[in-house]
Amino acid sequence: MFILIDKQRDTNYIYQQIYRGIKENILKGKLKANEKLPSKRSLAEELNVSINSVSFGYEQLLAEGYIYTIERKGYFVENITEFIQQENLFKDKLPEDLREEPVSRDGWLSLSHMASDLSIFPFKEWIKCQEKAIESYKRELSEIAYSQGPFAVRDTICRLIALSRGVNCEPEQIVIGAGTQLLVGQLMELISNDSVIAVENPGYARFYQLLKKMNFDVHPVSLDDQGIKMNEIESKKANVVFVTPSHQFPTGKIMPISRRIELLNWTTKDDNRYIVEDDYDSEFKYETDNISSLQSLDRNHRVIYMGTFSKTVLPGLRISYMVLPPNLLRKYRDYYAAFMQYSNSLMLFTLHYFIETGEYAKHVKRMNHQYETRRKLLIAEIKRRFRDEIQIEDVPAGLHFLAHFKTEKSYQEIEERAVQIKLEIYSIRRFLLKKNDNRENRISLVLGFANLKEESITEAVERLYDVFYK
Amino acid sequence: MFILIDKQRDTNYIYQQIYRGIKENILKGKLKANEKLPSKRSLAEELNVSINSVSFGYEQLLAEGYIYTIERKGYFVENITEFIQQENLFKDKLPEDLREEPVSRDGWLSLSHMASDLSIFPFKEWIKCQEKAIESYKRELSEIAYSQGPFAVRDTICRLIALSRGVNCEPEQIVIGAGTQLLVGQLMELISNDSVIAVENPGYARFYQLLKKMNFDVHPVSLDDQGIKMNEIESKKANVVFVTPSHQFPTGKIMPISRRIELLNWTTKDDNRYIVEDDYDSEFKYETDNISSLQSLDRNHRVIYMGTFSKTVLPGLRISYMVLPPNLLRKYRDYYAAFMQYSNSLMLFTLHYFIETGEYAKHVKRMNHQYETRRKLLIAEIKRRFRDEIQIEDVPAGLHFLAHFKTEKSYQEIEERAVQIKLEIYSIRRFLLKKNDNRENRISLVLGFANLKEESITEAVERLYDVFYK
Repeated sequence: MFILIDKQRDTNYIYQQIYRGIKENILKGKLKANEKLPSKRSLAEELNVSINSVSFGYEQLLAEGYIYTIERKGYFVENITEFIQQENLFKDKLPEDLREEPVSRDGWLSLSHMASDLSIFPFKEWIKCQEKAIESYKRELSEIAYSQGPFAVRDTICRLIALSRGVNCEPEQIVIGAGTQLLVGQLMELISNDSVIAVENPGYARFYQLLKKMNFDVHPVSLDDQGIKMNEIESKKANVVFVTPSHQFPTGKIMPISRRIELLNWTTKDDNRYIVEDDYDSEFKYETDNISSLQSLDRNHRVIYMGTFSKTVLPGLRISYMVLPPNLLRKYRDYYAAFMQYSNSLMLFTLHYFIETGEYAKHVKRMNHQYETRRKLLIAEIKRRFRDEIQIEDVPAGLHFLAHFKTEKSYQEIEERAVQIKLEIYSIRRFLLKKNDNRENRISLVLGFANLKEESITEAVERLYDVFYK
Repeated sequence: MFILIDKQRDTNYIYQQIYRGIKENILKGKLKANEKLPSKRSLAEELNVSINSVSFGYEQLLAEGYIYTIERKGYFVENITEFIQQENLFKDKLPEDLREEPVSRDGWLSLSHMASDLSIFPFKEWIKCQEKAIESYKRELSEIAYSQGPFAVRDTICRLIALSRGVNCEPEQIVIGAGTQLLVGQLMELISNDSVIAVENPGYARFYQLLKKMNFDVHPVSLDDQGIKMNEIESKKANVVFVTPSHQFPTGKIMPISRRIELLNWTTKDDNRYIVEDDYDSEFKYETDNISSLQSLDRNHRVIYMGTFSKTVLPGLRISYMVLPPNLLRKYRDYYAAFMQYSNSLMLFTLHYFIETGEYAKHVKRMNHQYETRRKLLIAEIKRRFRDEIQIEDVPAGLHFLAHFKTEKSYQEIEERAVQIKLEIYSIRRFLLKKNDNRENRISLVLGFANLKEESITEAVERLYDVFYK
């Protein structure tokens, strides 16, 4: 036997040395198939180690199939195929183009519409709610959740959106998921795949891309001053329409009642017509009251309502939900019987208590107050600095607004300069689902203010000015 | 104006009464399009309320598009299409077949392979790790995570699986996701859709169904005593093989080294061949050491390794991961650039500290100890009670084992009786991807012991005996 034992290591290690030594000898072909191994006792004597060490080593080799045993005859080497190793192009090193560089965000200011400010998030209360969840829902936490999500959580969400959004539903109709994108994917499996889909343009590019990847016939439809154009929906022969009536993404417009009624009336003209209402940030409404959801007006079960807690709780929370009309719910139950719930169940039950104890409402109120102030300050500061070079679509809602800047520069120049001076901005280019290049010497940005502290607003606007005019 | 104001309510409510009163008059057609509304002052006088109340009411109607305003002329009713309401089949009540009945689990005992025992989960340490995560990763938590998951967490997972599973990788190759099912879905988008897939039979039905839904040509391949049959893989002309080498699901067999080498050699014969290694419960290994992953032997970048924290931390944690070979990683980055991370980021950073502080390793060790005891007791108790009527596939690994019972009863009879006497069991029927009915008077059950307390084992076995022989 060609095993070297290093006694300096601890005893535990000795059996591993025996295991490895024999394993290598087998793989290298030095020990042949069906060759008999020495008895435990004789190997222990030969190596001057304990029989236990040899025994553990043999057991491990046996468990992994390197050797086999015949009762009262001993241990034998398995017949193992020779290993083919191809010429290895990568030599186990990751190719350079796949390396990730750590990105430092120090010194950056963000005008992103996607971020949140966690400095006012009540983490203490959140942890308390989590402790309650652990105490009260231990059995539920030890099992895999039902695909639609735990009933108690759906019940809570149901009551919340009935109150705050006028949504008409039962807990049974709610499907919880780890993000609206995932839910849209699930929903669209239930809808005939020869459907024609209309989406708002400009609009939410992720849904557009997802629908295209799912091989749907998707059409970007332009907006007039009331929202998505009815005549284009008709001319494209669409039967499913995706809209953001509470706060059009990204233009910020609120869909007036007349367009809402036109859309709902449109659904009644064919059995396969649906509206997907993406209510992504409706919790943020300044100056006036919240406007009820489109779903609240629907008496024909044609609206699928979608909401999320990413904007109000944490961006990485991954708890969204959709409300299915009864006929789609029936299809969902058929199709997704074996599916998993993808939201973290500890976070789901935590959210449940966060809402039940009133902490959620308090937090939303606090955020509304804070974001309203920031929004006003940011708009005032931009107007002061840019004067006539700017036009702002000033709708007091949501976490972003659209602003148009007079400039000779291109989108690319603007975006590159912003990176140079560490200002995170998103231009409307990202949301134009059909590109058009005659932009009459203006650039439109989607400006978010949720993660911009009051004391940084002046500096952020200064950088913004720099981006355009330096 | 036909508005009735109830002064008994608080002032806040008065503006809402004005808003609702006018809104209803418009929707019912009592106020006509372009009709002028009374001035704020005159309406306030008429209703004997404050001008502010009228003003708020008008603003809300304006925001929602019920009325419009012309400067210095006043407020006018919008031209709103009439609402079409179809005859409503459901009358807003949920149809009976869609109702969910609350299911009580009181008095049940579980032999499920899917559950966990949370009574030994160190929730206190988990919460502490969460507090650290909140403190140290506030910025990351306020942003949407990178589609592969935060680098710090991937780095931690990378070091963990290098150590415990011999997995050969860099953090860049790890993709975190909210479940292996979701990750399989993502992975298979990167693999040519004319691929032929081989899956183990019996095997994990969820993957099989998912692959069929994705329209892949999937073939259940039977097992010999070493695992998935090589000649069937060849005869089906498969180019992607799904396996569970550490602990075959559900038979529990450990794939010996020779079959591992045969599988790896098989991949080298064509450029499009891959093995998906689902290492779903490899952390649980009794009597011998852990067996390194199949990926650890792969020098040709053909194995996609998949792991999960559902079994070791919480079933509803929804944190899984896959390790992509460089060429698939490149495709992933192209395809999923705009994709979201679906795992909860607070839980991800909590897990990061849970591993880094050593709590994870401690917990896995504690669970191994506990589960080993339960496994031994359950097997002993079953053997004692059933004597010759039972054969157990006794592989000291994982959280379940396969047991065959001599009986004249059918699977359906067994399953119905189990529900009657509140015993949760899963039969192999669920995992037979191709049904065969000549089961020679025996029934095979997948028996899990993770959520069965020691003191309940005798009772659970008594019920099991009842299921078969009463």
